[in-house]
Amino acid sequence: MKSLPAVVLVACVAAAQGPAWRDRPVLDTSKSAYAVLHGVPVSAVALRDGFWSPRRKAAIAASLPTFLELLEQNGEIDNFRRLSGRKNVARRGRIPTDADVYKWLEAVAFAVQSGDAGPHIRQAAEGVIDDIAAGQDSSGYMVSAFMGENASQRHTGMARNHELYIFGHMLQAGIAWYRASGDRRLLDVGLRMADYLLRNFGLDKKPIFEGHPEVELALVELYRTIPDRRYLDLAGYFLDGDPRNMQAVRPADLVYLFTVEPFTDRTILEGHAVRAMYAVSGATDYFLETGNRKYQTTLANLWEDMVGRKMYVTGGLGSRAQGEAFGDPYELPNRQAYAESCAAIGNVFWNWRFLQATGDGKYTDVLERALYNGANSGLSLDGKLYCYRNPLEVGGDADDRIRNPWYSTPCCPPNLERILASLPGYFYSTSKDGVWVHLFDNSEVRWKLEDGTPIEMSQQTLYPWDDKATITVTPASAKNFTVFVRKPAWSAAARLEVAGVMVPAPLVQKGYFAIRRTWKPGDRITIQFDMRPRLTAANPLVRDDIGKVAVERGPLVYAAEGLDQPAGTTVFDWQLAVPSGGAAFKSVWKADMLGGIVTLVHPAVRPAVPDREQPLYRNMAAGKYVSGELTLIPFYTFQNREPTSMAVWIPYRIAGTAAR
Amino acid sequence: MKSLPAVVLVACVAAAQGPAWRDRPVLDTSKSAYAVLHGVPVSAVALRDGFWSPRRKAAIAASLPTFLELLEQNGEIDNFRRLSGRKNVARRGRIPTDADVYKWLEAVAFAVQSGDAGPHIRQAAEGVIDDIAAGQDSSGYMVSAFMGENASQRHTGMARNHELYIFGHMLQAGIAWYRASGDRRLLDVGLRMADYLLRNFGLDKKPIFEGHPEVELALVELYRTIPDRRYLDLAGYFLDGDPRNMQAVRPADLVYLFTVEPFTDRTILEGHAVRAMYAVSGATDYFLETGNRKYQTTLANLWEDMVGRKMYVTGGLGSRAQGEAFGDPYELPNRQAYAESCAAIGNVFWNWRFLQATGDGKYTDVLERALYNGANSGLSLDGKLYCYRNPLEVGGDADDRIRNPWYSTPCCPPNLERILASLPGYFYSTSKDGVWVHLFDNSEVRWKLEDGTPIEMSQQTLYPWDDKATITVTPASAKNFTVFVRKPAWSAAARLEVAGVMVPAPLVQKGYFAIRRTWKPGDRITIQFDMRPRLTAANPLVRDDIGKVAVERGPLVYAAEGLDQPAGTTVFDWQLAVPSGGAAFKSVWKADMLGGIVTLVHPAVRPAVPDREQPLYRNMAAGKYVSGELTLIPFYTFQNREPTSMAVWIPYRIAGTAAR
Repeated sequence: MKSLPAVVLVACVAAAQGPAWRDRPVLDTSKSAYAVLHGVPVSAVALRDGFWSPRRKAAIAASLPTFLELLEQNGEIDNFRRLSGRKNVARRGRIPTDADVYKWLEAVAFAVQSGDAGPHIRQAAEGVIDDIAAGQDSSGYMVSAFMGENASQRHTGMARNHELYIFGHMLQAGIAWYRASGDRRLLDVGLRMADYLLRNFGLDKKPIFEGHPEVELALVELYRTIPDRRYLDLAGYFLDGDPRNMQAVRPADLVYLFTVEPFTDRTILEGHAVRAMYAVSGATDYFLETGNRKYQTTLANLWEDMVGRKMYVTGGLGSRAQGEAFGDPYELPNRQAYAESCAAIGNVFWNWRFLQATGDGKYTDVLERALYNGANSGLSLDGKLYCYRNPLEVGGDADDRIRNPWYSTPCCPPNLERILASLPGYFYSTSKDGVWVHLFDNSEVRWKLEDGTPIEMSQQTLYPWDDKATITVTPASAKNFTVFVRKPAWSAAARLEVAGVMVPAPLVQKGYFAIRRTWKPGDRITIQFDMRPRLTAANPLVRDDIGKVAVERGPLVYAAEGLDQPAGTTVFDWQLAVPSGGAAFKSVWKADMLGGIVTLVHPAVRPAVPDREQPLYRNMAAGKYVSGELTLIPFYTFQNREPTSMAVWIPYRIAGTAAR
Repeated sequence: MKSLPAVVLVACVAAAQGPAWRDRPVLDTSKSAYAVLHGVPVSAVALRDGFWSPRRKAAIAASLPTFLELLEQNGEIDNFRRLSGRKNVARRGRIPTDADVYKWLEAVAFAVQSGDAGPHIRQAAEGVIDDIAAGQDSSGYMVSAFMGENASQRHTGMARNHELYIFGHMLQAGIAWYRASGDRRLLDVGLRMADYLLRNFGLDKKPIFEGHPEVELALVELYRTIPDRRYLDLAGYFLDGDPRNMQAVRPADLVYLFTVEPFTDRTILEGHAVRAMYAVSGATDYFLETGNRKYQTTLANLWEDMVGRKMYVTGGLGSRAQGEAFGDPYELPNRQAYAESCAAIGNVFWNWRFLQATGDGKYTDVLERALYNGANSGLSLDGKLYCYRNPLEVGGDADDRIRNPWYSTPCCPPNLERILASLPGYFYSTSKDGVWVHLFDNSEVRWKLEDGTPIEMSQQTLYPWDDKATITVTPASAKNFTVFVRKPAWSAAARLEVAGVMVPAPLVQKGYFAIRRTWKPGDRITIQFDMRPRLTAANPLVRDDIGKVAVERGPLVYAAEGLDQPAGTTVFDWQLAVPSGGAAFKSVWKADMLGGIVTLVHPAVRPAVPDREQPLYRNMAAGKYVSGELTLIPFYTFQNREPTSMAVWIPYRIAGTAAR
């Protein structure tokens, strides 16, 4: 695309010099002493037609209003209105309902930041904020489940009652809304509750803890917004743990809750996957501000444990339904996978924080894996159904509905809304050396280098469907700095052209092409990835994936659904027939299928007599096989049609052998 | 071996003409109208040194006395003594403790029947029976948990309170003790409770049900012992279900409990595996007496569902810890397998009943699979530790103790004791045409043909370690009848010699060689099996076993344990390297290992860089491998040494390919 006319650049500069509340990134590391990278606000980035634009539209135009209706129908907003007497109704839903509303508000705030929120949804959010603010207790306490007749139960069930989890989401929503509008009403509700906590609790006061991490990362972001050191220290109080609480929690709960014991005593990821992800995200935020080395070491060990032993190929986390928990190392069952949407989103949060702390593309690789697959799968294509679980295999029973409009604990829907609404904020960063490109999609960014030089960049690409992206770099005037362009680890080779010239041996630093030169307005970078479909094997210690492969193409993990296979067969009838020379995929663009996808088709075989008509056990020997083709679709699109079988991990045979 | 001298045969005849209580088989189908086969009493069969003799000795000489001590330590016998005031103590343990004691008594009774119970254990059992009888309520009710201060709770929690489950075990123990000794004291306790039930409950009285099947099969055996039709009809009342109970039970409980709804409405095995096995066993008993065709059809369908879709290769049942339950079809995870010892024993019970109804060896094949593997594994080699779960894979964590001396619900230990104590009763049957040999081990039987002709048979064999068995047939005088000798389905071929002459094309009827001739005392049958180790594949619909094989040899399923592999490796490091021409096992007899076993050794490879040092996901490609050997031991001996890794299903590669 062409560089923008000068008038736009002027507007951009003006925006960068706007009020303090405006133009703050999702994670505002601009003053974080231990951040290498600094975010670019949602408002500075526009996603154009491409891969993410329809996904984000599904979240903003379809999910936000329909989920608001469901919040109303289920009394979750009335739970606030009753506090001020605006509604005379009984409280409804489980304890954490407030958090659902706050996450929805945060998502609306991001849509407002990008200018994508319509007037109706913005007004609705204003009304909800008004209802919330009117209900706050004079003490500053504000959790609807423990107000009025239930006030005496405050802080009596800290392990399970989610009071400070709710407070954390209140803070995040308040901050996002403030950054979107300058309106402090909701932020002030949070500040009053923060002051209530600071008055009453702490090492020299009464002990307190929260059984579901979340408040830690919210308090650090509050400190970044209102630079009062007490907020950061309160986050540290929760993360370090108050020794007086250790008696209050059973050892099994120390595992499950992933809190109470000192964070730096953790050596493995275990227990409830979402709790663990929020805890490590909060701890990384704390590190970004404090540089505490014990936190850094602990976080690095936990990350290795996740990426090396406990993460699904989709970036999903949580192997067990029981406790929604991490399993043992390499325990990654596919059909039983829990892989809650919120856990994959937590994975994105954590790796984003780690990336800001290090500038290391290995974190972006995991972020991309979780974002494009295990999180992206959580929202239906029409934006109205949500996955709680994101299993890697589905039997196809019509009763086994993975996508539903509502859950008794609807934590995932607004989490999907907020990650998608805030997505423009995850594309770019700046550092003292220049500007960083983390993700690829048609987009424009208007921001500034860290010396204040206005810069505009745009991307033109059909990524991840196509293998090429063109990035136009337009500083306000010619200037020497570095453009860091991510080189995904999945791309065996990547071809780089700068200003029309191929770069034969480009400098790669920690997974990023580091392109330093004097950039002139309109200079172009072209990067071409290796988009050939890949057969991915799991470590054989993952017993569930032995004899099977996953198919990946670019950042996308693929899956086979029964509907796309020859009539009368399910995905479980087929095994890939892999030529000894390597995979033999056809990539086929299907504009009208599942919102527009590249399907993959590969030679496959199935037994001449269907397995379901064969005995359970038999001598190992080659049976008779029938040749055919297996068709795969991106994992994130699974179960968007009628119920059918689905599998990510697919048995294979090397052509010419009897291996099954 | 030689035929016994005439004096022994005379004693045998005398025994066969003894009092009515004596010489009754475990399952007394002697008057069952729909039984094809009829049992041979435990007292008529002597197991000599061989495979089962040390296992049975572990049960009788070690398990029975040590478990009695634990029953005493845990107050389970005091729970009876307090009823009569003999002990003034509080009740201890969960509701079904009485059933543990009854099963222990039943096991002692079988040991008495075979003459293997020492005087101490017999006296102890006499004392326990006395304590029980003294405590019975004047109404006839007798469940210790609901007597005295808890009497008002009788029949108020029918779904979960196990009252009639306990009653069933009381009946089985009373019958076995009566058949062992002629002593009716415990049987009379059961008869009084039966009369209490008949007085109070039934279609024309109050409704009743029991949430854990067991009473059904016990009532049928009571009917076989005391031929009062009301006992059989009461079993039918429970099996057919009282429509008035359908309201009392949630749909999920109809699945879990495997009772309440009419048995003949069942179409699949589901819910709690032990409950289901006891239900189908009781229903088969009911069919053996009534010939009800709907029961026959239902049972045949359920058997196909089990054997075709839901049974582990070990004969274990129950895929899920949650609900100790069957899973979906082909849901057979290995490490998470529940496979409760009691469920495998229930599998033996059911197939024994089906075998008596049909004379079909397909039931003996399943019985043998469950007996030698999934049930046999439940008792440690020293007889003092018990498996509740019998998983097919163990990670090797020292904290993951599969074998324990006691459980809060110690149902499995006495179940293992009673199946092993009664085992001689499972070797032979008679039919109108002759005599049947179901199992192979050194043994002697002294019994009679159905026309009353005394017959003695002996087996000489090192089965299952060796491939040959010699059976000596000694009727009292030369006589024409059929000897049915089982031809196991696992033996691809079997060579048969009768009286020294090879039989080139022997008649095989439903899995049994049917050898009809005029048998002269001392005639010999020699059968030689195909004992070559087998590589068994699971149906690919069992997703957990894709790319893996199980190793079997004769009736034994094998497993690899980490301890036996090269230093520094676990079983999970290795894959079998299978020559394209077929398996290449060495079978090695190890007299001093695990009580004496044949180990199997096969070429194998492991990655040059251990998997635990490799990434979780990687491109599918052949890595570098190091050659070696994998050693396997019989599954039933697993975890009899220090904690270590274990796997039944083992990855393999066809030599010369990269398949993993």
